[in-house]
Amino acid sequence: MSYFSELISTVFERRYQKALSNEVVDRTTSELCEDLLSSHGEVSGVTLARNLLDRYAGMTHEEKTAFFEFMAHDLEVNPYDVISSLEKYQEKPAKGTYRAFAAACEPRRQELARRLNQVPGATGQLVQMRKDLLGMMKNRPNLEPVDVDFRHLFASWFNRGFLVLRPIDWSSPAEILEKIIAYEAVHEIDSWDDLRRRLKPTDRRCFGFFHPSMADEPLIFVEVALTKGVPNSVQDLLTNERSEIEAEDADTAVFYSISNCQAGLAGISFGNSLIKQVVSDLSKDLPNLSTFVTLSPIPGLNKWLGSTDLNILEAADNQAVAAYYLLEAKRSDRMPFDPVARFHLGNGALVYAVHAEADTSPNGRKQSNGAMVNYLYDLSQISQNHEKFVGEQTVVASAAVKALSGSVAPKS
Amino acid sequence: MSYFSELISTVFERRYQKALSNEVVDRTTSELCEDLLSSHGEVSGVTLARNLLDRYAGMTHEEKTAFFEFMAHDLEVNPYDVISSLEKYQEKPAKGTYRAFAAACEPRRQELARRLNQVPGATGQLVQMRKDLLGMMKNRPNLEPVDVDFRHLFASWFNRGFLVLRPIDWSSPAEILEKIIAYEAVHEIDSWDDLRRRLKPTDRRCFGFFHPSMADEPLIFVEVALTKGVPNSVQDLLTNERSEIEAEDADTAVFYSISNCQAGLAGISFGNSLIKQVVSDLSKDLPNLSTFVTLSPIPGLNKWLGSTDLNILEAADNQAVAAYYLLEAKRSDRMPFDPVARFHLGNGALVYAVHAEADTSPNGRKQSNGAMVNYLYDLSQISQNHEKFVGEQTVVASAAVKALSGSVAPKS
Amino acid sequence: MSYFSELISTVFERRYQKALSNEVVDRTTSELCEDLLSSHGEVSGVTLARNLLDRYAGMTHEEKTAFFEFMAHDLEVNPYDVISSLEKYQEKPAKGTYRAFAAACEPRRQELARRLNQVPGATGQLVQMRKDLLGMMKNRPNLEPVDVDFRHLFASWFNRGFLVLRPIDWSSPAEILEKIIAYEAVHEIDSWDDLRRRLKPTDRRCFGFFHPSMADEPLIFVEVALTKGVPNSVQDLLTNERSEIEAEDADTAVFYSISNCQAGLAGISFGNSLIKQVVSDLSKDLPNLSTFVTLSPIPGLNKWLGSTDLNILEAADNQAVAAYYLLEAKRSDRMPFDPVARFHLGNGALVYAVHAEADTSPNGRKQSNGAMVNYLYDLSQISQNHEKFVGEQTVVASAAVKALSGSVAPKS
Amino acid sequence: MSYFSELISTVFERRYQKALSNEVVDRTTSELCEDLLSSHGEVSGVTLARNLLDRYAGMTHEEKTAFFEFMAHDLEVNPYDVISSLEKYQEKPAKGTYRAFAAACEPRRQELARRLNQVPGATGQLVQMRKDLLGMMKNRPNLEPVDVDFRHLFASWFNRGFLVLRPIDWSSPAEILEKIIAYEAVHEIDSWDDLRRRLKPTDRRCFGFFHPSMADEPLIFVEVALTKGVPNSVQDLLTNERSEIEAEDADTAVFYSISNCQAGLAGISFGNSLIKQVVSDLSKDLPNLSTFVTLSPIPGLNKWLGSTDLNILEAADNQAVAAYYLLEAKRSDRMPFDPVARFHLGNGALVYAVHAEADTSPNGRKQSNGAMVNYLYDLSQISQNHEKFVGEQTVVASAAVKALSGSVAPKS
Repeated sequence: MSYFSELISTVFERRYQKALSNEVVDRTTSELCEDLLSSHGEVSGVTLARNLLDRYAGMTHEEKTAFFEFMAHDLEVNPYDVISSLEKYQEKPAKGTYRAFAAACEPRRQELARRLNQVPGATGQLVQMRKDLLGMMKNRPNLEPVDVDFRHLFASWFNRGFLVLRPIDWSSPAEILEKIIAYEAVHEIDSWDDLRRRLKPTDRRCFGFFHPSMADEPLIFVEVALTKGVPNSVQDLLTNERSEIEAEDADTAVFYSISNCQAGLAGISFGNSLIKQVVSDLSKDLPNLSTFVTLSPIPGLNKWLGSTDLNILEAADNQAVAAYYLLEAKRSDRMPFDPVARFHLGNGALVYAVHAEADTSPNGRKQSNGAMVNYLYDLSQISQNHEKFVGEQTVVASAAVKALSGSVAPKS
Repeated sequence: MSYFSELISTVFERRYQKALSNEVVDRTTSELCEDLLSSHGEVSGVTLARNLLDRYAGMTHEEKTAFFEFMAHDLEVNPYDVISSLEKYQEKPAKGTYRAFAAACEPRRQELARRLNQVPGATGQLVQMRKDLLGMMKNRPNLEPVDVDFRHLFASWFNRGFLVLRPIDWSSPAEILEKIIAYEAVHEIDSWDDLRRRLKPTDRRCFGFFHPSMADEPLIFVEVALTKGVPNSVQDLLTNERSEIEAEDADTAVFYSISNCQAGLAGISFGNSLIKQVVSDLSKDLPNLSTFVTLSPIPGLNKWLGSTDLNILEAADNQAVAAYYLLEAKRSDRMPFDPVARFHLGNGALVYAVHAEADTSPNGRKQSNGAMVNYLYDLSQISQNHEKFVGEQTVVASAAVKALSGSVAPKS
Repeated sequence: MSYFSELISTVFERRYQKALSNEVVDRTTSELCEDLLSSHGEVSGVTLARNLLDRYAGMTHEEKTAFFEFMAHDLEVNPYDVISSLEKYQEKPAKGTYRAFAAACEPRRQELARRLNQVPGATGQLVQMRKDLLGMMKNRPNLEPVDVDFRHLFASWFNRGFLVLRPIDWSSPAEILEKIIAYEAVHEIDSWDDLRRRLKPTDRRCFGFFHPSMADEPLIFVEVALTKGVPNSVQDLLTNERSEIEAEDADTAVFYSISNCQAGLAGISFGNSLIKQVVSDLSKDLPNLSTFVTLSPIPGLNKWLGSTDLNILEAADNQAVAAYYLLEAKRSDRMPFDPVARFHLGNGALVYAVHAEADTSPNGRKQSNGAMVNYLYDLSQISQNHEKFVGEQTVVASAAVKALSGSVAPKS
Repeated sequence: MSYFSELISTVFERRYQKALSNEVVDRTTSELCEDLLSSHGEVSGVTLARNLLDRYAGMTHEEKTAFFEFMAHDLEVNPYDVISSLEKYQEKPAKGTYRAFAAACEPRRQELARRLNQVPGATGQLVQMRKDLLGMMKNRPNLEPVDVDFRHLFASWFNRGFLVLRPIDWSSPAEILEKIIAYEAVHEIDSWDDLRRRLKPTDRRCFGFFHPSMADEPLIFVEVALTKGVPNSVQDLLTNERSEIEAEDADTAVFYSISNCQAGLAGISFGNSLIKQVVSDLSKDLPNLSTFVTLSPIPGLNKWLGSTDLNILEAADNQAVAAYYLLEAKRSDRMPFDPVARFHLGNGALVYAVHAEADTSPNGRKQSNGAMVNYLYDLSQISQNHEKFVGEQTVVASAAVKALSGSVAPKS
């Protein structure tokens, strides 16, 4: 029904837009933006907004750059307005003076984005727009404030309270599944048959967060294996020849792949909420599950080994080296060197076990000599783990992992 | 599914919350707010937020007042931060300096509201919170800036692009229908039988806007009658004894009642979008429809007659007086005196016909001596009507209504 | 979507039907039936069928009688065909001879009903048709074979495997809820507010069986209360002033009302499947539930007391009399006298407890002096209870009920 | 929800079944069938039925043969019962005597199938069972009566009124789409990319009939191309390089592939209803469509040419030969030789156009030298076309096709 009503809307707007297009076609993009910002009562706002979005979709790289430069300069805050409205607000704190101050502080590009978003389906296009912007920013740092505003808006629009968790399985729409294939970032899915192996068996699950306005676009998804015991090899998990078990018989849920899908939502974090929600849903559905772990790559291990002055290579086997790295290798801010470690430890997980020969793929060899790690999500402890990690930079780990790490005696 | 997953979430959070509640129970509301604002990584954020919302739900009027005062004072912008961050941004415009400026300009109460909104279902509670605030503001104007921030957030969250139009009919959930009964503001619905008469017949329709995070709460709805010809009496439309027609045989769609449902969304306008969307949907479904009109009350007529110096009562019959009022009675800003007229004319509608004895209910008699008006929505003209109205304060009207108005010769 | 596609279908068929109606209008109902039975390839079958159903809907009582008489006589089996086709089949058992025999044995009215059922929505109309037939049969026993055929078809169409169990709650469509109000047969629902009290609280449930082709018509439904302990009064269950409990805190599910909805499905039994399915669903959803009982009326008690020669009235209090009645009062076939007892005991339940002053409504007083009974559904025992009841006519009961019954010493 | 409730049911039945299995495991299949047939009140019926279905699923070919032989012999009608019950019914026509006669005429295997069908999901398994039976019947003609009974039941269960038309597109569940790939019988789908090309473009449609009890199994589906003008080559329709058009701009809907999916439903015809329903739905959705045609293979052409005595090969080109074949090549019953022609002409379509070089695939060359045909569905004429075809064996054709056929002067 919703799809249908949007379809109708599209048909209707298209017709209506044709009537308007004569007035519109001769105006520059910046003029249209000003029209949209000044339009009252929304009468022609949606049509103007759709027109601008369509125009953007057809722009060359240069035209897009010009558009963002327009946003950066012409729709920037005016410092004199900020200061004078602030003074008036301080003199007489009231509705009108505060509203004027708030308006002066917010660059008009934020309101432009909100008005573009009136068009059904626009949210996804705006996410795409920021993706373009992020690409350009590397060479044009002056566009960074525009990105700060996009991110501010998106953090509000993609608030956890607005997201919907949906299971993704073999009865999901093909148009969503083809995106799972495209977006899987950790362990590539090479065909629809491979996808079916990850979604259809009763001991496999997948969940994603969706936003109601981008209903066929997952924002992030996690793939889960239900197992007996904690696994120590991703190839064993994914092999064609494994024997399926009944979901009710599993005692462990393994999060073996988490993929962000939208480059345009960089910096808006969903992973922590997703894992906690999935732990909660699975606990309810399958009361026999008692252990929730990841089977995670250690992407920074070899890079760090190459850069460190410590000579630990001869000191220990690969497993202990990985343990040592996870517990001891730090950045200058005392946070772990490993990005995946930072993510899970920041969520309140702990380092549970380390395995050699756990990812024997070329990529696994290259990044960590095949080592992988299980991070454990123990709901009764994640809050205090998180506090220790954020407050004191303590990496919480199991006794076994600590022992492995302790066995390494690096010489500098 | 969504309902179910939220249910699970609730169960889970509740359990988790119990663990947390010992740390929480001894802290003041303002301390909890500071905790929530300082919490990183969302680990305990959702739980803190739920706790705060629950606490708010149980507050007395005095406690709520104190809470809003806390928001107004303790979570206010700091003018020195604004100015110093602005100076740094101007010196060196970059990501970091702009982000600091943007953060300084935005009072922390906005971030508080966003973090409260992480809880599934919180959006409706925040709307309710603003409703409370609006009630308090009359006596406490110093709270007005808090409301400006709520409204700013809500305008972003309840953006047209996020709303979903849904038909409301006799197969809709009872929990939504009971709200239609409660919220109908124009022509009261006095029982479920009355409601059935407005929803079930094939020549009756109802549509509402919904927000995905408040799925069982209409934001605004419109009731529509499908008729042959333009009706001139609301009692004829609603009578028990009327004879139903086939929807396909109707040539006219009559919007005879539009009701806003959420006091906490005051100032966020949905009506214009709703009408246009419904016109578009009905056009597609029922190609025989050629006329889209309202049958609207004239709520300000008698009030204006009582206040004007013009002596027009003896000059003309009631119909012509109503026409004169709609076309000529203006406020000091040259906008029409009548609020319903301002709404429809602002949307680009025109004054199409005026009827005496059209609403013979006590309320109809009281506000307009029984007169009502049809505003016409002609999609090919609403854009230019709107421009004329906003730009030149011109009230566009049919020749017939102009003639009626012209026949009135008031003596001052 | 389904509703929509049916709508389209209706529109289409209506148009198509107009073209056909000229050929159709002059033909008698029996001629149309013969046309429908002889039509090949379904080309005009659906249209003919719809025409016949529409015609039936407009018939007087006399015309309906004539229609059923036509079915009874003109569409009856031909005994000579039965015998000759049987002989041929015995001579040469093969596909063709068997098909001829099967065709000869089945009266053509069965095929007529199947062809009428090609029309979307027809199933409900055929159920209605049988309801009419059941009413007429009392005076016209010669129509009974027609009913045997209807029942045979309906038993196949309304097979358990085709039914769908759906929860009915306050978010169910109003068009279904108004039927719950209308069909409740045990404890009347007197208003929408009363209905809300039975459906909305977290400790109340309702479930119904639906057939996919009659999606807005419940076939049977059961109302459930979740309680702590087994209740002994239906007024306590239904009172306005009771205090709601959390569903998770309940240990007992009470089936306090079961209502069949379709008179036209008389003799097709759904109750046993419904109760077992609901026990199973609730067990899964609410693992704390350990007891599944009814709170049932004893409709035959006073009637039996009035008819029996036994003088037990002075011997015991009302509770013991009810126990005695349930265990000892039998029909000539050794089955219990009480119809509700026969239903639950036949399902494998046992007589668990008997209560005086449990239904103090006028109807409760009238039928059983206010006594009610709990039948217990213990899944681990229902199979053997059922065997004992069906095989040996043993009424299984708790020790407490047996003791109560044993305390009654009737004098004949 | 439905899926979930079935899941629950499965869990429950499984547990319950374990309790029962001890009594069950030692009994032969035929004993279990007798148990199921004699079980009253359904108490253990569903469990017995599930047990039998599970047992069947694990049977070897020999065991299945034995099972069908049991159905053929042990569950056969008893001729003496037929005759004696018929006599009693004739003596005293009443409910009881008629019911006895009806029971005697119906072999008990029909009731067995109905009782097996009580298990949720059983319908699909019974369809599979008949598929097995059809395979065996070739060597065991004595099983044919069993098949007659299956077909009789299925015709009732898969009545048009119970089927649901659903669009199949790129948002359909993968588990349904993989069946479309598997079942496509006319123009093979060689990959998911190929499938996407047939489903995703706005000028492509696909519709299938589904039965509510086999929700993820299409029964039959049709693929439709929306075009400008009537196409004359299936390779042009399916090529990767074609340019998509807007659905609204098409004037013609082309049914280029119709596939039956369930071998076990052989002889139950859905195609005619499907085409008519799709014509009706598309007409409503896309009012610009004015022509509804097939682009059909001519599978019998070369076979007939090889068998006929007529020497027409030198007489005419391929197009005219195909036209001649379609209009003149008949079986002994005066029906067209071509099976696809019989299907569409039987539905009331007419032979609209014939094309050479329309299917240049190896299969197209092999069966018809590449020729294809458009059958036209003109709703205003299909009824009379059908009558002519069925009554007089007249093949209705366009003037152009008649002319082509007339140009062929075969010499015998």
